[in-house]
Amino acid sequence: MREKLKAHIEKVVPLTEEEFEFVLAQFTIKKFRKYQFLIQEGEAVKYSYFVVSGLLKLVHTDDTGKQRIVSFAMEDWWESDYYAYFTQTEATMSLDCLEDTVVFCLLLEDYKKLCDGLQKMERFFLEKANFGFIGSQRRIISWLTSNAKERYEQLLKQYPSLVQRVPKSLLAAYLGVSRETLSRLSA
Amino acid sequence: MREKLKAHIEKVVPLTEEEFEFVLAQFTIKKFRKYQFLIQEGEAVKYSYFVVSGLLKLVHTDDTGKQRIVSFAMEDWWESDYYAYFTQTEATMSLDCLEDTVVFCLLLEDYKKLCDGLQKMERFFLEKANFGFIGSQRRIISWLTSNAKERYEQLLKQYPSLVQRVPKSLLAAYLGVSRETLSRLSA
Repeated sequence: MREKLKAHIEKVVPLTEEEFEFVLAQFTIKKFRKYQFLIQEGEAVKYSYFVVSGLLKLVHTDDTGKQRIVSFAMEDWWESDYYAYFTQTEATMSLDCLEDTVVFCLLLEDYKKLCDGLQKMERFFLEKANFGFIGSQRRIISWLTSNAKERYEQLLKQYPSLVQRVPKSLLAAYLGVSRETLSRLSA
Repeated sequence: MREKLKAHIEKVVPLTEEEFEFVLAQFTIKKFRKYQFLIQEGEAVKYSYFVVSGLLKLVHTDDTGKQRIVSFAMEDWWESDYYAYFTQTEATMSLDCLEDTVVFCLLLEDYKKLCDGLQKMERFFLEKANFGFIGSQRRIISWLTSNAKERYEQLLKQYPSLVQRVPKSLLAAYLGVSRETLSRLSA
């Protein structure tokens, strides 16, 4: 499991064994079962999560109780309610498991410790944040410019394994279409 | 003008006068007239821009020629086609002026020089990137959960001066509603 984290970080910055030991010491590993929650709306957000294995969904619930899927997260992805995490406020989203899931957990104070203690890790997080921002911006553009069929095809092209693993009803919720429309698109 | 950049960076990290001189040396200042383009679709994206004064719009044009406004940028905001900037690929968006505009321009190589040369600046960019990501995520949630009236009210609450300055037709394009619908909302 440690090798997965190391390989993931080293896609951006190489680490000596000693540096990686320092990095690893800031994380804890947790295992969750399908349906378990890592983050609950209204509660504190302690951790940013790096997914070793499994599949999660980040969900926003509106005032009428309607749930919208903000994003999915699978192997090699980072996920949290980042606004709540960075500002240490209550979660406005929930994060729960669609499969049995293993994650590395990082407290905000340990995130800061990593950035302060090892400039390479600040570089790593900067790269992740820049491409996270770009990813969100591309999703906005996709919403502005594409219809449901095109959005489905983009998702299939970009993340084929995600489309396989996510239940169709949730995929429909993510794409903003009905379950019936999705069946037509994916037929 | 230099004081605006200094004050902006110092909201995140304090800089000595010597450090700020190093930072400032990586930027160039450019002035643009209303209607001028800073980025054109299909061309290289040389710079990331910090807006000193003025107002810009970042626009995506789809295959049918329909234009969508991805974001606006005004004083104290950073803007670019960041995917193209960081990957040094052709712009898929354009950036042009809605008012006469003054910007600080930062080449990618000078962005890297700032990050390498001064860890405080890497911290600054990390903070900007994290909150840029959060901002995009909140816009996605707003799209998923709110109707046009609610989106207009959120924008008015968050950026009252932006709503004042942006022509109504562009505000409608940004919110994804017709000009007529917006007139009704803002009446």
